[in-house]
Amino acid sequence: MAEATADYKVIGTRPLRPDGADKVTGRAIYGGDVRMTGMLHGKILRSPHAHARIKSIDTSKAEALPGVKAVMTASDLPEPEDRMAAAGEVAVNLKYLAGNVMARDKVLYKGHAVAAVAATSIHIAEEALDLIEVDYEVLPPVMDVLDAMKDDAPILHDDLKMMEFGQQTDKNCNIANHFQFKLGEPEDGFKEADVIIEREFNTATVHQGYIEPHNATVLWHEDGHLDVWTSTQGQFVVQKQTSEVLGIPVSDVTVTPCEIGGGFGGKIPVYLEPAAAILSKKSGKPVKIIMSRIEEFDATGPTPGSNMTVKIGAKNDGKVVAAEAVLKFEAGAYPGSPVTAGAMCIFAPYAFPNMQVDGYDVVLNKPKTAAYRAPGATNAAYASETVMDELAEKLGMDPLELRQINGTKEGERQVHGVAFPRIGYMETVHAALEHEHYATPLTGPNRGRGVASGFWFNVGFQSSVVINVNSDGTVNLIEGSTDIGGTRASIAMQAAEAMEIPYEDVKPHVVNTDSIGYTDVTGGSRTTFATGYAAHDAALDVIAQMKGRCAGRWNSDEAPVTADDVDYSGGTFINKKNAEQTMTFKEVAATLARTGGPLTGSATVQPRGVGGAFATHVVDVEVDPDTGKVQILRYTATQDVGTAIHPSYVEGQIQGGAVQGIGWALNEEFVYNDDGNMVNASFLDYRMPTSLDLPMIDTVLVEVPNPGHPYGVRGVGEVPIVPPPAAIANAIYRATGKRMTDLPMSPSAVLNKLNNGD
Amino acid sequence: MAEATADYKVIGTRPLRPDGADKVTGRAIYGGDVRMTGMLHGKILRSPHAHARIKSIDTSKAEALPGVKAVMTASDLPEPEDRMAAAGEVAVNLKYLAGNVMARDKVLYKGHAVAAVAATSIHIAEEALDLIEVDYEVLPPVMDVLDAMKDDAPILHDDLKMMEFGQQTDKNCNIANHFQFKLGEPEDGFKEADVIIEREFNTATVHQGYIEPHNATVLWHEDGHLDVWTSTQGQFVVQKQTSEVLGIPVSDVTVTPCEIGGGFGGKIPVYLEPAAAILSKKSGKPVKIIMSRIEEFDATGPTPGSNMTVKIGAKNDGKVVAAEAVLKFEAGAYPGSPVTAGAMCIFAPYAFPNMQVDGYDVVLNKPKTAAYRAPGATNAAYASETVMDELAEKLGMDPLELRQINGTKEGERQVHGVAFPRIGYMETVHAALEHEHYATPLTGPNRGRGVASGFWFNVGFQSSVVINVNSDGTVNLIEGSTDIGGTRASIAMQAAEAMEIPYEDVKPHVVNTDSIGYTDVTGGSRTTFATGYAAHDAALDVIAQMKGRCAGRWNSDEAPVTADDVDYSGGTFINKKNAEQTMTFKEVAATLARTGGPLTGSATVQPRGVGGAFATHVVDVEVDPDTGKVQILRYTATQDVGTAIHPSYVEGQIQGGAVQGIGWALNEEFVYNDDGNMVNASFLDYRMPTSLDLPMIDTVLVEVPNPGHPYGVRGVGEVPIVPPPAAIANAIYRATGKRMTDLPMSPSAVLNKLNNGD
Repeated sequence: MAEATADYKVIGTRPLRPDGADKVTGRAIYGGDVRMTGMLHGKILRSPHAHARIKSIDTSKAEALPGVKAVMTASDLPEPEDRMAAAGEVAVNLKYLAGNVMARDKVLYKGHAVAAVAATSIHIAEEALDLIEVDYEVLPPVMDVLDAMKDDAPILHDDLKMMEFGQQTDKNCNIANHFQFKLGEPEDGFKEADVIIEREFNTATVHQGYIEPHNATVLWHEDGHLDVWTSTQGQFVVQKQTSEVLGIPVSDVTVTPCEIGGGFGGKIPVYLEPAAAILSKKSGKPVKIIMSRIEEFDATGPTPGSNMTVKIGAKNDGKVVAAEAVLKFEAGAYPGSPVTAGAMCIFAPYAFPNMQVDGYDVVLNKPKTAAYRAPGATNAAYASETVMDELAEKLGMDPLELRQINGTKEGERQVHGVAFPRIGYMETVHAALEHEHYATPLTGPNRGRGVASGFWFNVGFQSSVVINVNSDGTVNLIEGSTDIGGTRASIAMQAAEAMEIPYEDVKPHVVNTDSIGYTDVTGGSRTTFATGYAAHDAALDVIAQMKGRCAGRWNSDEAPVTADDVDYSGGTFINKKNAEQTMTFKEVAATLARTGGPLTGSATVQPRGVGGAFATHVVDVEVDPDTGKVQILRYTATQDVGTAIHPSYVEGQIQGGAVQGIGWALNEEFVYNDDGNMVNASFLDYRMPTSLDLPMIDTVLVEVPNPGHPYGVRGVGEVPIVPPPAAIANAIYRATGKRMTDLPMSPSAVLNKLNNGD
Repeated sequence: MAEATADYKVIGTRPLRPDGADKVTGRAIYGGDVRMTGMLHGKILRSPHAHARIKSIDTSKAEALPGVKAVMTASDLPEPEDRMAAAGEVAVNLKYLAGNVMARDKVLYKGHAVAAVAATSIHIAEEALDLIEVDYEVLPPVMDVLDAMKDDAPILHDDLKMMEFGQQTDKNCNIANHFQFKLGEPEDGFKEADVIIEREFNTATVHQGYIEPHNATVLWHEDGHLDVWTSTQGQFVVQKQTSEVLGIPVSDVTVTPCEIGGGFGGKIPVYLEPAAAILSKKSGKPVKIIMSRIEEFDATGPTPGSNMTVKIGAKNDGKVVAAEAVLKFEAGAYPGSPVTAGAMCIFAPYAFPNMQVDGYDVVLNKPKTAAYRAPGATNAAYASETVMDELAEKLGMDPLELRQINGTKEGERQVHGVAFPRIGYMETVHAALEHEHYATPLTGPNRGRGVASGFWFNVGFQSSVVINVNSDGTVNLIEGSTDIGGTRASIAMQAAEAMEIPYEDVKPHVVNTDSIGYTDVTGGSRTTFATGYAAHDAALDVIAQMKGRCAGRWNSDEAPVTADDVDYSGGTFINKKNAEQTMTFKEVAATLARTGGPLTGSATVQPRGVGGAFATHVVDVEVDPDTGKVQILRYTATQDVGTAIHPSYVEGQIQGGAVQGIGWALNEEFVYNDDGNMVNASFLDYRMPTSLDLPMIDTVLVEVPNPGHPYGVRGVGEVPIVPPPAAIANAIYRATGKRMTDLPMSPSAVLNKLNNGD
């Protein structure tokens, strides 16, 4: 459908974002800005233990404290059914979802919610928490994926039965699921290999680190209707999950999405809404809860720590003959790590003839993991791309050359059997190879250059758009996709392109769940793709209806005109039978009241033509041999972005993703003590990269349009986080001769390797 | 289209209103409830003179007062163009609209806005008003329509040239317009008359008396976008008028309609929004202005006082041969009284062969009139229906019998030449005649029974509705019609009927101007008619799309199924080719994600098949001969309501309208002193009826479906105010032998007539 050389008027330009002025002047309403008459402040009592049985909860003293208006525990929520519930990128069992919102019989991680209080001030609410008496039977925690898989490990869920190869087993353990993807015969493949590399890797638990904490303000009206204001990646997921945890009809919940200060996958699940709802119901007042940063670390959804082994064998000519991986991912306290996605992504850049990936989803006493930008793929690529680098070294090849030999393309099958549509992986490798960065020799001691590739999906899901035409020729575009990275602009631009009107004439509005058709989360790299697709279709609906209005005006008994007789081009409608009859878009808009009334275009989509994204990154580092500190000297990210609707925002996504990947690579990790308490739960101790730590991230937009989208859009937002850890590990190797196999590659870890490693 | 005997499932029932619980528990957000961070409080400085030239305004002292953040005058607004601007029920010249918002060179009535202040507290704002120095050259005011028409009257507008019979003249006077409707040859007709009655009438200026005062909260964002929150009958009219007065594009203004505490036509024009906008622009803060009750009386839009003469001639058999009327209406300070509507309504109940009505639109030093429930018709009917009563008396006929002889019906032409479609006037007369009330003799001294009829239009205009289907089988209905009298329910009911789903499954939402297509005001008795029509059409769009989804599921190569093969009945879709294949509405809704994604239905309408409404009222009164006080003993209102969608709300409209008409009849009037100051500007002194003053108003719903609407809806909300003053005057005559010709017929006026009248 889309052509790389398409002569776009709006797409590819870099206009201002509609929400920009309000955001920089402090007018935008974030979740924390919501205030209501009589509003109470809520706080959550959280478990001090990583693993314990709740013997009893006594809230009577808290209830008696003056200023306390309501106290709730899990006993105020309906007993959850054991069934799959609404989800964002990853499905979730309702029992686990509800259990994570408020612990029922056991606490499964330090920070697990056990009760909630609403009071007239935040200070009274905090004081009341201290008056709630919880009698715990403390159990030993298990904090590591390999420990949790042992036969004698403490068991988190008495009723969890392992799934194995798609079958339910009777085995009660911490392994929720073991699956395998297999393509070809890896065992036979390895027999043909001249070189085989096998390595084991570990990665740490990492947080999305969005600036704005989770928040929810909830009012349970007297007629049973629930109003929720929250910062979320998906108002419809919050609506669905809240209704399911509360056991009320989905249409009894209205969710108004506030502006959002970052999500990256972590603002999809509900944490606070059901508790705030019960507190509102009990008190008759609106209740607002905002998490502290400690609560964010202790009790939201980080990305999993993992243990992985990867084995790749190749012929001396560089042709890989077989690859195997075993991925063991920490799900946190409830099943549902992104190990499946990791398994699908780990070898995605390569058309290996024989592949096998085993995945294990393992529960342990950490907070339930959530999505985090290309969930699972960054862990996986750290392992596979490091082994590929070592393989290139052993074969005496440039690592990008090895990728040129083995890289995947349209028609090649992935490990789970699905063939790729038109993709641009090879183009990213070529772009990296041809880039001035790669051509410039890196000199100096303790320096090295690394490369790595990565893949992430582009999901479709469901989106709705309605376009109403204003009398001044502008249009209001109503959408259900919360705008995190500039999608108001990128979606409005597609509508403007389709209607051939200026971008500034399209006014995008992100509305609540009452006011637009169902729309899935802003996640899965889907928003500019799927909601943009809906905007395109709704725009064409507007043009089609306008042709009918023109025909109605021009039609006469002597010279009949139908909509089919009307052409539209460059903002002007023309009667094909009488070229003197023309009307501009603005003229049609101004005269709607005389041609039949208002004009509304609409479209809903569930697009299947998704376009996955590949990235290849090049990084230069310098390692301080005395401290182990790794300094990023230069960084270039090439990525197949399909058609870049708004290139600045695409570049921003790539830069942001790369920086987060650098954080994973060099610093970020949840550090737990033996009791299962996180000891670095602050932004001082949980060290994320700042602009001072980084060079400018150079981006190369490789545009291979996705044939499954009218403008060739692919997902772009997630894959840039995937290559950095491996690329940096490979660069460290070139600088030091040491292969790093654990994340983060912090100064102490690098120093340890320099002093003691192999 | 509609059948009186239609077997409706939802229409005709009396379900709860969706907004009820929130309104009775204080949760509904009215304009006064809007609060924002950093919000300033605005106040308007108003002229103490009814007529004066503004020589200068010095705001410097006010600006210097600590806490004052902005001061504005008309000089902050663009010079308005001399052209027609956006309007609700009655069009308005932009120059006059802007001039009424903020006086530029002259003040034309006491209370005319001359400046506005925004401060950190309402008290500081009030204090600042006293510091604004306005130098006035005081001019003599003219306060009566007949005085204003005199050649030597003080002239309000130096540039106002009279329109006469549709032509612009050069005459500068206070008569903005003189027009004439004529049907047949009245002069010839009167020659055939056996009896001729001619009388002169006067009516007072009357206020709608809505409980909630005018309000506006406005934020002028840094990017030039304006957000307005206000209680209004039409968010799109506020959007249009505000943009036009401010000289900015209509799409730069978002108007969010709050709940509204009554409007009755008075909450259509903008008063505060442009001033609040300029104050917000100057201060950089949101600014809220709420009128006091005195400001409401002094400076909003009451209904006009009027002088009218009516002459009707009949044969001895009761057949009227000719009728003439001259209507002189006070427009207030700017042109635009409802005299045209009054002229169209005055003889509307009758198929008189010869008719002529002259209308005069006259400016004078009172606030600019606005719409008030059937604007113009109540004045007019007071005159015509009193004369008809006297005619019946002279002919020795029952007054309802005279109406049976002369009453109009389908096909009969109105004075302006347009023939009636199917209407139900005769049915209302018949219903009154047959009612137990009319059959029961009224006995006792000083008692009398009166009857009167009335007509009001049903306008179409433009409406938009969007319906989104939820996964639980409920739907969200998005509309742009503010709900004053229960239209959320009456519109949702029509959608439910069309989709054959329960009323409770339709969730109506009134949204802002960004979120729905253009929709005209809640006024003109149009909302349940036109927005209901759009809801019906949008509902059918949903069903049609669902048929397509069913067909998609059932279709196979062996047994092809298209949407045309799918029937829908009673909530179930059936494959006409295979009756075993069925899906309920709820099942289709639950599986949308597997059949192509979300489902949005939409419709916009500009319906032409309007159905006017007739009413005939019967009232029994007792007159206290010592005080002149008139007590309503019994009241029965019959009305052709088309199809009563929600009978309780129809009854409520009739009762409310009748009570307002009783207020006009017996008490309400603006009392001015010689300087043009209203001396009774409070609800203590401006006496509206309370429940203690009234009997239960009995209603008789005569259902003559409107063939121009799929469910036969007519406008119902306005006509019930039309008959009461005449019916009560006629009752007073039967009780006292005195014909009342001036409104209000207050105790002092009645006593005066008893003591001195003819």
